[in-house]
Amino acid sequence: MIYPGGSVTPTSMSDELKKGLEGVLVAESALSYIDGDAGRLIYRGYSIEDLAREACYEEILYLLWHGELPTQEELDSFAETMASERDVDDHVIESLADLADEDEHPMAALRTGVSMLSATEPEADADPEDLDASLRKGRRIVAKIPTLLAAYDRLRRDEEPLDPREELSHAGNFLYMLTGEEPSDTAEETFDMALILHADHGLNASTFTSMVIASTQADIYSAVTGGIGALSGPLHGGANQDVMATLLEIDESDKDPLQWVKDTIEAGGRIPGWGHRVYNVTDPRAKILRTKLEDLTEVTGDERWLEYTSTIENYLVGEKSLPEKNIAPNVDYYSGSVYYKLGIPVDMYTSIFAMSRAGGWVAHVLEYREDNRLIRPRGRYIGHDEREYVPIDER
Amino acid sequence: MIYPGGSVTPTSMSDELKKGLEGVLVAESALSYIDGDAGRLIYRGYSIEDLAREACYEEILYLLWHGELPTQEELDSFAETMASERDVDDHVIESLADLADEDEHPMAALRTGVSMLSATEPEADADPEDLDASLRKGRRIVAKIPTLLAAYDRLRRDEEPLDPREELSHAGNFLYMLTGEEPSDTAEETFDMALILHADHGLNASTFTSMVIASTQADIYSAVTGGIGALSGPLHGGANQDVMATLLEIDESDKDPLQWVKDTIEAGGRIPGWGHRVYNVTDPRAKILRTKLEDLTEVTGDERWLEYTSTIENYLVGEKSLPEKNIAPNVDYYSGSVYYKLGIPVDMYTSIFAMSRAGGWVAHVLEYREDNRLIRPRGRYIGHDEREYVPIDER
Repeated sequence: MIYPGGSVTPTSMSDELKKGLEGVLVAESALSYIDGDAGRLIYRGYSIEDLAREACYEEILYLLWHGELPTQEELDSFAETMASERDVDDHVIESLADLADEDEHPMAALRTGVSMLSATEPEADADPEDLDASLRKGRRIVAKIPTLLAAYDRLRRDEEPLDPREELSHAGNFLYMLTGEEPSDTAEETFDMALILHADHGLNASTFTSMVIASTQADIYSAVTGGIGALSGPLHGGANQDVMATLLEIDESDKDPLQWVKDTIEAGGRIPGWGHRVYNVTDPRAKILRTKLEDLTEVTGDERWLEYTSTIENYLVGEKSLPEKNIAPNVDYYSGSVYYKLGIPVDMYTSIFAMSRAGGWVAHVLEYREDNRLIRPRGRYIGHDEREYVPIDER
Repeated sequence: MIYPGGSVTPTSMSDELKKGLEGVLVAESALSYIDGDAGRLIYRGYSIEDLAREACYEEILYLLWHGELPTQEELDSFAETMASERDVDDHVIESLADLADEDEHPMAALRTGVSMLSATEPEADADPEDLDASLRKGRRIVAKIPTLLAAYDRLRRDEEPLDPREELSHAGNFLYMLTGEEPSDTAEETFDMALILHADHGLNASTFTSMVIASTQADIYSAVTGGIGALSGPLHGGANQDVMATLLEIDESDKDPLQWVKDTIEAGGRIPGWGHRVYNVTDPRAKILRTKLEDLTEVTGDERWLEYTSTIENYLVGEKSLPEKNIAPNVDYYSGSVYYKLGIPVDMYTSIFAMSRAGGWVAHVLEYREDNRLIRPRGRYIGHDEREYVPIDER
């Protein structure tokens, strides 16, 4: 066995394989803190409960990107600038139309859409070390993602994309562009809250992807495009969609929901939306979304999703034979049915997550780049020892 | 200070910050081994010198993806399949034309182009755990990258993209599609060799990016798109372009090249293409490319780039006052002038690197996914302790 090692200094070497990097401390961050035992999440010191109840998504972006909550004047100016940056070039919309014709998944369409945006970035030639320019670029990306997504969904429904409306909030404007109607206050508030809850969550796989890309001094468009790719994976952002698929399956099965969950568990099936690598108790975001699901249920009168969700939860919480990590619902467990009630197509849920988390990606990229170091781990070579090349006619 | 920790088991925890992950062992791999002290690089046991001299790029792809060198029959079948997958959908070419109108950088155009390819992937609906399907998807991406790049360059020169020709090699077909002429044997061999040299190189930042993305079970299109983003950064793939810019600067300066390098060092300037995180001696790929530069110089008679390159090298090797790590030329130091002699536009050098390395990204993704584990490191929270939310009108 050849052992690689000359490339790193002895003090930083370890033979221990850190597969998945679980527990490996890769960066310091002042952005968000998760206490997995207490079920607590804070953004820059503020509890997620306070922020979800009191703030709007634009305020959260300001907090993450600039370090402090804005004054009213600062918020107005920030939100106004962002609102003025929502327009997307016609060529991008045309390309999205081609993707819609091919029935591309919304996350793949978003990945392509964001990647295309760099071509019309007004500060494309800024020095990669100019972090103020990177922040403005990041802001433009976050401003335009709702436009891309709403346009994409309309295109695949053979409806004309709608121009963004500057006087609406980030959340409200998206729902308007998607549905063609100004959302109710409850819908807008709920969606805004969902965006707040998903804006940042430590060094998850998509955030880390953005940081690795940005550590090469690549442009923030590359970093966000990569983050979207990582989030598209079923092990990361895909679970809220799976939860809703499960609830729809229960609905169509005509089975009693309690019986359904018992049968599923007995057959070795997985209930999506349960368990999380970093929470050992109920995800605090799940609790907040649950109250919103209750509000929406009251407004609409349709009690199915809340009922199924509660039935599963009551059963699983009481069930002691589950795998250790699957002990509590996570944010995905509730976001699915909330989005469903807001009229968002099920296959777009992961891209709604991306719409929000893009704010966190931009924040982490900027923070990491302030004291940048190329991220390049080590692999242990376990392949063949050096062997002689055999010419092709002698193989 | 709040200390996060409940989320990981005590045994895997360490308080040591591994910024840049230098020396952190994140995966085992049988693909490539680098001995930074001896200046040695092997792919699956075969030395890079043997492979560069004896094999072709398609053979290297087969070796990396299937574990062993192919027989003639296996190679013929593999190369034929890949050649039949070079065509790119017209819609993608139209989108590239829009990007060309905006003067987008080739790496960003490639990022968008690869991202768009997933829409016409014939196995788009394959299970993410079907690694055979992922390999075929990866093969299609690698087959199409030269088509995307050549088309993009022609579009920005207001020339019609050329259809790929199946009877040409991967390297030869690219040069044909780029220039409109079948390359000379020397040009084709040189370019093929450059592709071989860049195909894999351990867990560099772009390869690691692809692995992090794929660890979420995201599609390989997302993984390769992310890899392109990471490679686009000046700290990773951008250096060969910088080397050529330096050589052109010397050429235009009318200065004696020795004087130029002395003046530049004295003024605190950096000479690109020197030093590497994992090599403490001359990068073995640099040595091989140097011989190719000598061959090309002999064929063309234009001795400028070889002369400037040698002058800088002789001076820097003798200069003891350089920063410790900058002691030897790396692969970028020679690839720039080689590509220049092949008629490839300077701003496409990084995308040539991507064209080759995509093979390595696919190999690492498949290898990692055989025993997949979500890559999610930990961050140390250094932000505010929990603080009370202040309503906006009281700030």
